[in-house]
Amino acid sequence: MNKDFKPYYAVIFTSTRTEGDNGYSEMSNLMEKLAKEQDGFISMDSAKNEVGITISYWRNKEAIANWKQQSDHQIAQKLGIKQWYKWYNVRICKVEREYSYREGGNLKGDE
Amino acid sequence: MNKDFKPYYAVIFTSTRTEGDNGYSEMSNLMEKLAKEQDGFISMDSAKNEVGITISYWRNKEAIANWKQQSDHQIAQKLGIKQWYKWYNVRICKVEREYSYREGGNLKGDE
Repeated sequence: MNKDFKPYYAVIFTSTRTEGDNGYSEMSNLMEKLAKEQDGFISMDSAKNEVGITISYWRNKEAIANWKQQSDHQIAQKLGIKQWYKWYNVRICKVEREYSYREGGNLKGDE
Repeated sequence: MNKDFKPYYAVIFTSTRTEGDNGYSEMSNLMEKLAKEQDGFISMDSAKNEVGITISYWRNKEAIANWKQQSDHQIAQKLGIKQWYKWYNVRICKVEREYSYREGGNLKGDE
């Protein structure tokens, strides 16, 4: 899907949460909805066990900077530090190559 | 931790599995062990719900290419296509910026 966008960017957000929800789920759903409305948003992957990993994909670095500064997201970032996260790490990455496999198909991409 | 390595590389592996284990867990543990022994390996993050996400971090692209060609890993890749994955996607990314937060501390990094 992303072949036309290359190079594009990935924001890797890894975290461990504090105990309890404390309003996290509601805010998380809102942030996902708002991120998807931002210019330059491509897609998002998320999974959580001991560590939570959310990766969002963006057309360029400007789109990432705009999302970081978005006003509701700024509030969420402050609350995240205040009450939701024991730690988190953010990595801004340029996606240089990509390939994929689908059942019954072949490998596709830049391999 | 990674400040000294920058820029370094991330391999984002997202996947959905077929039903059942079919020897996956044993191979997955072995691959994690072998990856950690490879030259240029830095660290790894993993989480799985509907989608599984494994991100491995490497010093450079040569280290990633070497790991892709490693003989046991080649066998695992073939078995992965044959029996473990409905689909997977591999993205090779350059980590350009990074910052982190730890409870009771401040934001650190390239923000």
